[in-house]
Amino acid sequence: MTFTPVDYNPYDFANRRHIGPSPVEMEEMLAAVGVRALDELIDQTVPPSIRQAQPLSWAPLAEHELLAMMKEVGAKNWVMTSLIGQGYYGTVLPPAIQRNILENPAWYTAYTPYQPEIAQGRLEALLNFQTMICDLTGLDVANASLLDEATAAAEAMAMAERVAKSKAKAFFVDRFCHPQTIAVIRTRALPLGIEIIEDDVRNLDPTKVFGAIFQYPSSYGHVVDFTLRIASLHAAGAIAIMATDLLALCMLKEPGAMGADIAVGSAQRFGVPMGYGGPHAAFMAVKDAHKRQMPGRIVGVSIDAQGGKAYRLALQTREQHIRREKATSNVCTAQALLAVMASMYAVFHGPKGLRAIAERVHFLTQRLARALKAAGAKVAPKAFFDTITVEVGVGQAGILAAARNEGLNFRKIGLDRVGISLDETTDERVLIKVLRAFGIDGVPPHRATLGFPEEMLRTTDYLTHPVFHMNRAESEMMRYMRRLSDRDLALDRAMIPLGSCTMKLNAAAEMMPITWPEFGSLHPFAPRDQAAGYHEAINDLSAKLCEITGYDAFSMQPNSGAQGEYAGLLTILAYHKARGDHDRKVCLIPTSAHGTNPASAQMAGMEVVVVKSAPNGDVDVEDFRQKAEAAGARLAACMITYPSTHGVFEETVKEICRITHDHGGQVYIDGANMNALVGLVKPGEIGGDVSHLNLHKTFAIPHGGGGPGMGPIGVKAHLAPHLPGHPETGGDGTVSAAPYGSASILLISWAYCLMMGGQGLTQATRVAILNANYVAARLSGHYPILFMGNKGRVAHECILDTRPFADHGVTVDDIAKRLIDNGFHAPTMSWPVSGTLMVEPTESETKAEIDRFVTALLAIREEIRAVENGEIAAEDSPLRHAPHTVAALVGEWNRKYSRESGCFPPGAFKVDKYWPPVGRVDNVYGDRHLVCTCPPVESYAEAAE
Amino acid sequence: MTFTPVDYNPYDFANRRHIGPSPVEMEEMLAAVGVRALDELIDQTVPPSIRQAQPLSWAPLAEHELLAMMKEVGAKNWVMTSLIGQGYYGTVLPPAIQRNILENPAWYTAYTPYQPEIAQGRLEALLNFQTMICDLTGLDVANASLLDEATAAAEAMAMAERVAKSKAKAFFVDRFCHPQTIAVIRTRALPLGIEIIEDDVRNLDPTKVFGAIFQYPSSYGHVVDFTLRIASLHAAGAIAIMATDLLALCMLKEPGAMGADIAVGSAQRFGVPMGYGGPHAAFMAVKDAHKRQMPGRIVGVSIDAQGGKAYRLALQTREQHIRREKATSNVCTAQALLAVMASMYAVFHGPKGLRAIAERVHFLTQRLARALKAAGAKVAPKAFFDTITVEVGVGQAGILAAARNEGLNFRKIGLDRVGISLDETTDERVLIKVLRAFGIDGVPPHRATLGFPEEMLRTTDYLTHPVFHMNRAESEMMRYMRRLSDRDLALDRAMIPLGSCTMKLNAAAEMMPITWPEFGSLHPFAPRDQAAGYHEAINDLSAKLCEITGYDAFSMQPNSGAQGEYAGLLTILAYHKARGDHDRKVCLIPTSAHGTNPASAQMAGMEVVVVKSAPNGDVDVEDFRQKAEAAGARLAACMITYPSTHGVFEETVKEICRITHDHGGQVYIDGANMNALVGLVKPGEIGGDVSHLNLHKTFAIPHGGGGPGMGPIGVKAHLAPHLPGHPETGGDGTVSAAPYGSASILLISWAYCLMMGGQGLTQATRVAILNANYVAARLSGHYPILFMGNKGRVAHECILDTRPFADHGVTVDDIAKRLIDNGFHAPTMSWPVSGTLMVEPTESETKAEIDRFVTALLAIREEIRAVENGEIAAEDSPLRHAPHTVAALVGEWNRKYSRESGCFPPGAFKVDKYWPPVGRVDNVYGDRHLVCTCPPVESYAEAAE
Repeated sequence: MTFTPVDYNPYDFANRRHIGPSPVEMEEMLAAVGVRALDELIDQTVPPSIRQAQPLSWAPLAEHELLAMMKEVGAKNWVMTSLIGQGYYGTVLPPAIQRNILENPAWYTAYTPYQPEIAQGRLEALLNFQTMICDLTGLDVANASLLDEATAAAEAMAMAERVAKSKAKAFFVDRFCHPQTIAVIRTRALPLGIEIIEDDVRNLDPTKVFGAIFQYPSSYGHVVDFTLRIASLHAAGAIAIMATDLLALCMLKEPGAMGADIAVGSAQRFGVPMGYGGPHAAFMAVKDAHKRQMPGRIVGVSIDAQGGKAYRLALQTREQHIRREKATSNVCTAQALLAVMASMYAVFHGPKGLRAIAERVHFLTQRLARALKAAGAKVAPKAFFDTITVEVGVGQAGILAAARNEGLNFRKIGLDRVGISLDETTDERVLIKVLRAFGIDGVPPHRATLGFPEEMLRTTDYLTHPVFHMNRAESEMMRYMRRLSDRDLALDRAMIPLGSCTMKLNAAAEMMPITWPEFGSLHPFAPRDQAAGYHEAINDLSAKLCEITGYDAFSMQPNSGAQGEYAGLLTILAYHKARGDHDRKVCLIPTSAHGTNPASAQMAGMEVVVVKSAPNGDVDVEDFRQKAEAAGARLAACMITYPSTHGVFEETVKEICRITHDHGGQVYIDGANMNALVGLVKPGEIGGDVSHLNLHKTFAIPHGGGGPGMGPIGVKAHLAPHLPGHPETGGDGTVSAAPYGSASILLISWAYCLMMGGQGLTQATRVAILNANYVAARLSGHYPILFMGNKGRVAHECILDTRPFADHGVTVDDIAKRLIDNGFHAPTMSWPVSGTLMVEPTESETKAEIDRFVTALLAIREEIRAVENGEIAAEDSPLRHAPHTVAALVGEWNRKYSRESGCFPPGAFKVDKYWPPVGRVDNVYGDRHLVCTCPPVESYAEAAE
Repeated sequence: MTFTPVDYNPYDFANRRHIGPSPVEMEEMLAAVGVRALDELIDQTVPPSIRQAQPLSWAPLAEHELLAMMKEVGAKNWVMTSLIGQGYYGTVLPPAIQRNILENPAWYTAYTPYQPEIAQGRLEALLNFQTMICDLTGLDVANASLLDEATAAAEAMAMAERVAKSKAKAFFVDRFCHPQTIAVIRTRALPLGIEIIEDDVRNLDPTKVFGAIFQYPSSYGHVVDFTLRIASLHAAGAIAIMATDLLALCMLKEPGAMGADIAVGSAQRFGVPMGYGGPHAAFMAVKDAHKRQMPGRIVGVSIDAQGGKAYRLALQTREQHIRREKATSNVCTAQALLAVMASMYAVFHGPKGLRAIAERVHFLTQRLARALKAAGAKVAPKAFFDTITVEVGVGQAGILAAARNEGLNFRKIGLDRVGISLDETTDERVLIKVLRAFGIDGVPPHRATLGFPEEMLRTTDYLTHPVFHMNRAESEMMRYMRRLSDRDLALDRAMIPLGSCTMKLNAAAEMMPITWPEFGSLHPFAPRDQAAGYHEAINDLSAKLCEITGYDAFSMQPNSGAQGEYAGLLTILAYHKARGDHDRKVCLIPTSAHGTNPASAQMAGMEVVVVKSAPNGDVDVEDFRQKAEAAGARLAACMITYPSTHGVFEETVKEICRITHDHGGQVYIDGANMNALVGLVKPGEIGGDVSHLNLHKTFAIPHGGGGPGMGPIGVKAHLAPHLPGHPETGGDGTVSAAPYGSASILLISWAYCLMMGGQGLTQATRVAILNANYVAARLSGHYPILFMGNKGRVAHECILDTRPFADHGVTVDDIAKRLIDNGFHAPTMSWPVSGTLMVEPTESETKAEIDRFVTALLAIREEIRAVENGEIAAEDSPLRHAPHTVAALVGEWNRKYSRESGCFPPGAFKVDKYWPPVGRVDNVYGDRHLVCTCPPVESYAEAAE
């Protein structure tokens, strides 16, 4: 016997945990694909001409090493009590919500609820959110969240322009709005040709503007009744927007009662940690008349095939992927997970609890103001809710330093004032410290008196729906959250093979640091020296992303991919402008582009010129050349996706970049398909000048049931000076409320990069390509595969053509819904080509799971064949009746196939089967009978029947 | 309009979160019970004569206040790198397991799997554990875990005495066993009259003993082949026990290969944090011949009513609640949650990964030994795995201090040696520090050579079952954990109305601190000054428990309720002995007692005298008096439960205590029903001298699917000097491996007490009584309610008599299984009275949930009536066919009732229905065909079919 040590690294995160197929499985897959080695497949797939020369450099960390390192980095953040306010507040995340939602993969790994049958749980939670927003703002219809308050305000401005009767071209901004909101509005207004009038509301001339936005309470605390102002705006045919605060609205007269048309704001302080800027759910609510003009996703109530109540996303026809270059907004994601948390916070506390919290904060602010005034301080405003300012003159630096010594951050306002905003976490101990910073000992006694006129008290009820009056026992709350999540299908139960969405593993280790207080409790405008840990993370992540992409600088500000596109295009325009090229406005975009591309270009004020696709799906280079030449000195940019949205590595990419550069244009490479590039190809090396990265696709941030996302942009050095600035950090072109966007989830991508290491990331890309080619190989001959490369390979996704079945009455929808019976989320439907399914397995799926999926699709093909052969009519087939519910199963069965074959098609788990709570949802009904708040009680009673 | 502030505390944990019924619900319930106010009900239920005079004193903390305070307390623990070993090691808990099991209520709120149909998930995980233990130890049958290694060793000794052919009365203990193991063995041996021979194994005379235990590797590191020793024991008819280490067994020759009869040990280092002592899963594995003598729970494989594979607890007839005073062990719980974690750790790493970890630890130890020897140090032993000792002479204190300066804890051995045990978390940085503590710079290079003879290398395979060769992708692991948990019904989905088990809310906030490293990473034998946070927690919890119980001192050592009983009785015996009362051995125990009571008394060497119950279920006071008189000066103690196991506050309790004291006996009040007393009655004030508290019942520690538990004991001052000691803290009578038992979960109970406050705890008790009386009121007239108090009230639980239905062929089992169709765990069955159901709703359940349960029971009553009326035969009824599975539903239906009525009885959720994965499990089949390791592959294939 001789001893041979085992050759195995149990802590190899990339190969043992993140990448799905085991070595043995990979061998089998390579054989099925018809190559001897992975290298061979990659060589056939990725053109050698574009491959990067150097491998990615850094070594991987094991999970426990990562967490230990994160603890050290976190310790470099100095968590003070931030009373800065300005849209971000301390809040108490109820532990039951933290554990059962934020830290629960059933919630955070879910996809956007485009397939409503497998998303009834989160759709209900989002409907609760919309109901809460409608109730608190006093408006009729709310969306299911937006990216942040500042972009919501900018969206509201753009919407106001569309719906206003006034033909004025100017927009009024209350100078007491949050500075970051004003900055984003200015960024957005400029390319749209909107003039911004920033002034005191007293100077508002309603006839000069199509709309106006007021902050309520103001950024500096003012509680003002805007009723008369709004009436005068209406008289002039202009739109009134109020940026407001949900907690304040639990006490204060609501925007709807003042006549506002639109209300926007952030739901952050409803239980969502500040996280150095986000993510948080912003909201928008509008009057009923404007609902079809509202951007963002809206959850509505409809019925299913059996006539039962069912939720779905309403009015999807308004979405940017339909409107493309006619789009009025490029918003294509939400902050679903955060909206769910905020809505659960409202369920958890109910209206009475929220009111109590609001009063608690207000009375503490009252005591603070009283004490300061008693000590002779000049305190403003007269009417306030939770925020006051103090005139401190030349003593400003001293007061700020004294506060800091007490562990507090005040807001620095101008050169002679400080602002103080109290919040849910403020208690008497904090109050004592605040006063001590002003040299005042002790606090005045509690008194339940108002710091604003009694006429400003809210007189209407809110959150009257039974869901907000649920018994608040944690047992009941926990079970409610469990029941909702059980209705949904997320990555924690099955593969989600969504082409272009890259639904890869979101590892538990990556998720852990984000709920640590040392990362969660930082205010985005806290002094930079208190955020050394964050900056270490941001800098190192930037460096790694630069190495991965071949770019020279990154901005972490954009909060979503679409926002990244927008910011990237603005950066290009700013560059041209700086060079005196004011006329470069043309943006060439292929027909196959993501719908957000033209929408973003449109918003950036560019002129979109569409370039044809060749029959094989590639960009038509000749057409591209002609259109570039036609644009000539007006060519600003082209926007391409690489590999293409058809899932192909086009050999011509360098040619396209060259043409663009030859005409003085800049190349925007959409990073949506970066999961096929990392470690193999650097967009910055093949001709790209700018790219955004969808960190929620390639870099492991979970989709959260439809957000958060992150879309940082990388640029070549010449564009770096033109990246987005921010009022807090300097510079203009602000696109997000916070300087580093949703900073806390950058930690997820950082952790992912650190644990994968450079080699691991590269191997992930290679296996993503293998997995897609394996799917193509297994299904080829059964389903036509569209758009292969010239060596017959797909990239990291493959498109199945289902149009031939339409002649027999089988739709792509039938196939998608039938997959639910197998316990799968459908692939991307009808995009980029109508009547197709785009499958992206990602590297995280095992061969076993992919095989289960293939088994399901092959069985579906047999069911289609039975229709083709006339054995069963399409409308009688299990395809049409899919998905099958327990209710259908239990009732009378008069189908032309058995219960067994209906409910347990090949590939479905027997014991662990997922049952959709509703049958096929009726989309037309839902849009015709639009209901976007919680339906009445009876619908709920049935659940507890 | 005048402003009125809202009167509502949203942070009131007791009333808004923990206590189920809302104020409105409580009003309705009081009306149903027939009282005007809760005070009135309590007065009718709890005899005024025993009520405590003073309310509990402390104010409550809100959840966020609690967590902030816990952070402060945790910061007082000084987390060093402990290389102390001695049964506790650093380990890496895989984040996926932490998130998806330890922090997931679907796992931690589950009950012991006595109802196998709703527990297939955790039964599978525990079967994996048993398979892992069998494989690694090389023995045939393993149980599903024991409390800790030391008690497992003591259990093994007791078992050895039962099965040995040798009639010798002595037991040999290798002096190289862990000191705490030796201490617990000594405690256990004394009352059983077993002589302990503690010596060097070379001095073992096999003819003098019925068994022997060896530690392998030894506490000081020795790796010794015991094959010949064991053969000589066998020749003498004696039993060989090996206390062993799972990680070492991944490299070293296994106990089975040496011929060992029994192996015990701890699975702690398979991913379970040290937690300052626990909880961890201990294990025991035995040869096939001895399996029916093995203590603890064993998971076995059986079939269900449809003939499919189904797991269950096997051989339950061996359990203490059956054997009572003939019991040979009082073990009645396990460490299920921790066993599940350890088994998942093995699934996560697989045999190759475990081997790699073992080799990594071993090679590091080799390097350490080499470096020390090269520097001239005297290092022992020659053959080692992960532990070495160094002779340091008078330099001991200096070396320990130097280590401390490096952030390390070494083990102090005697006056001139230190011990060093490396573990999974050790890396080169740690090695450098260790050597620096010895004044050595640098480390020698890695070399893959063995630190023990090659003959000691393991030559057999282990973990060959496919479950341990699962694809290790986290996606797959996460889905496996989710699938298993979905098969089970726990508190996160429905009420578990188990009489005597007090399945109350385990709040998320209470669970959070236990996974913080500042509590998880402490070695139980770390110097006390490093555990200041723990001691603050333990001391304050003790003080609060003293106030609650009226006792003067607490020992946190016992790891379970039964162990608390045992420790309490030993304390009583030690007290008698200290007073010269050597003959006081009689223990009076009523027939209605928990089965553990006589079992514990038996183990403590007492003479159990059974006292009759009166027809109303109360203790027969006359019989008690007579038996106490008969015992006279031999009376050691009585053991009573209060309120009684029949759920009644007996008025005579003080009388019984008086009689006992009059005869010089001590009163042991079993704390099982403490949930009916907290804040109302102090056992220490009504005559109790000792009680154990089931912290996992009354004090919110989750049941974890069958453990952990904690059973600290409170005593009056005169008994305090006789509480359990420990080798690390001084004193004898050690009952657990660690001085403070499973210290980390004490934090849960502490958090519970802190957040509830004294008033909240009292209100919880009152509402627990209300909830039980509400159930009784709603069901009375439909089911006979047994054992009411003299005012017609039950305490915190009520007993439904189902014996009348037996005449018609409807069994208590039928009712229990039918409740599964409603999505409920059955109440406690046939205890304390055969043919009954004991319902304990606890204070945490809402009226709505209780009503759903009552609806289900009333509907079941109608189904029984149909049988009684001859409308349907019992064997044809849905009662007998319960529980109904999807498989039954999908297949052909030839039942005499509809699918709808079978699957959706009143009370069942429609959309959110829980489906049991198997039909009714066949118990007899399972015990006849005992299979206690993972069944072969085919059975698994079907799941992925």
